[in-house]
Amino acid sequence: MSEVLKEVIEANQSYAKTFGDKSKLAMPPARHFAILTCMDARLDPAKYAGLSEGDAHVIRNAGGRASDDAIRSLVISHKLLGTKEWFVIHHTDCGMESFTDEIMNDLLASSLKTASVDSSGWHDSGEGPGSTEGKYINWLTISDNAKSVLEDVLRIRNHPLVSKDIPIYGYIFDVASGELKEIPEATEAGKIS
Amino acid sequence: MSEVLKEVIEANQSYAKTFGDKSKLAMPPARHFAILTCMDARLDPAKYAGLSEGDAHVIRNAGGRASDDAIRSLVISHKLLGTKEWFVIHHTDCGMESFTDEIMNDLLASSLKTASVDSSGWHDSGEGPGSTEGKYINWLTISDNAKSVLEDVLRIRNHPLVSKDIPIYGYIFDVASGELKEIPEATEAGKIS
Repeated sequence: MSEVLKEVIEANQSYAKTFGDKSKLAMPPARHFAILTCMDARLDPAKYAGLSEGDAHVIRNAGGRASDDAIRSLVISHKLLGTKEWFVIHHTDCGMESFTDEIMNDLLASSLKTASVDSSGWHDSGEGPGSTEGKYINWLTISDNAKSVLEDVLRIRNHPLVSKDIPIYGYIFDVASGELKEIPEATEAGKIS
Repeated sequence: MSEVLKEVIEANQSYAKTFGDKSKLAMPPARHFAILTCMDARLDPAKYAGLSEGDAHVIRNAGGRASDDAIRSLVISHKLLGTKEWFVIHHTDCGMESFTDEIMNDLLASSLKTASVDSSGWHDSGEGPGSTEGKYINWLTISDNAKSVLEDVLRIRNHPLVSKDIPIYGYIFDVASGELKEIPEATEAGKIS
């Protein structure tokens, strides 16, 4: 058993011991909202937005992007589980700003192992099998955070399966301060109509 | 400003006040692992797996499914940000077990507003615009939790962009006890080869 696996299981045993009344929580989010945000390790949406277990849906992927899968999740969140307000929250210093589709595909073509970055760019060990599969994936990289939040709010707002009466708020989490900063154009674009 | 929005902003201001040293965290996850799990409001992966900010990537969608978008995120997590072990964690009493693609599409066809469930099944208000768009989405519903974990570990294991030297562990989170329970067949299928 790896060190990580051991630590996770031990942490879980401590958590389960003090689980208490949380066993009685209902499936639908008690506070009727959902957050779409990035998988970044520095982000803890429960802490940065003040969520307790049972409060809200949290959807996370690389970048916090409004991918088809994020929209699948949001539609289920509203339609079956009653969320009525949604947040799109990207963040400063996002890994998705550090590469392009071309860089990613070149790295994957030379190796599936971990690459590393320095001031001259991304580098690869060159080991491992070649691959052209990366070209079939849109990595959804980000060039400007405020723009990506606006784009994603707009994509959700305009999706034919998204009810017009759900407000969508656009924010950026600042990894240097812990603060959520609104992107007013995004929140404006996400207004109910 | 809605009550939810006000509460989130207030909670965030408290969090930012005590942010301290977290401003110095690096982008790559310090503990070099990633968790793919469900968006369910009752799940707090940081709590159930013992994560601090900076420790691990957390990817979440409806069901914790190994969708193309989850795989996009996992490949970025490994290739650019160095995670070396992955968990797939579904859970008991998942909303994804409560409906089928057909039910979802019927509900969406009659209304985009929230539906409700009782002992005779899902019901819809019948209001709102009709839609056939739902038929273009695979909702990735779940009929058996242990099976869905195994399927998702296998899909990730067999993906051409996933390095063979990343172990993938399969677990179910029990919403009645807070415990993580291993699905041994899934962890076995996720072994490095």
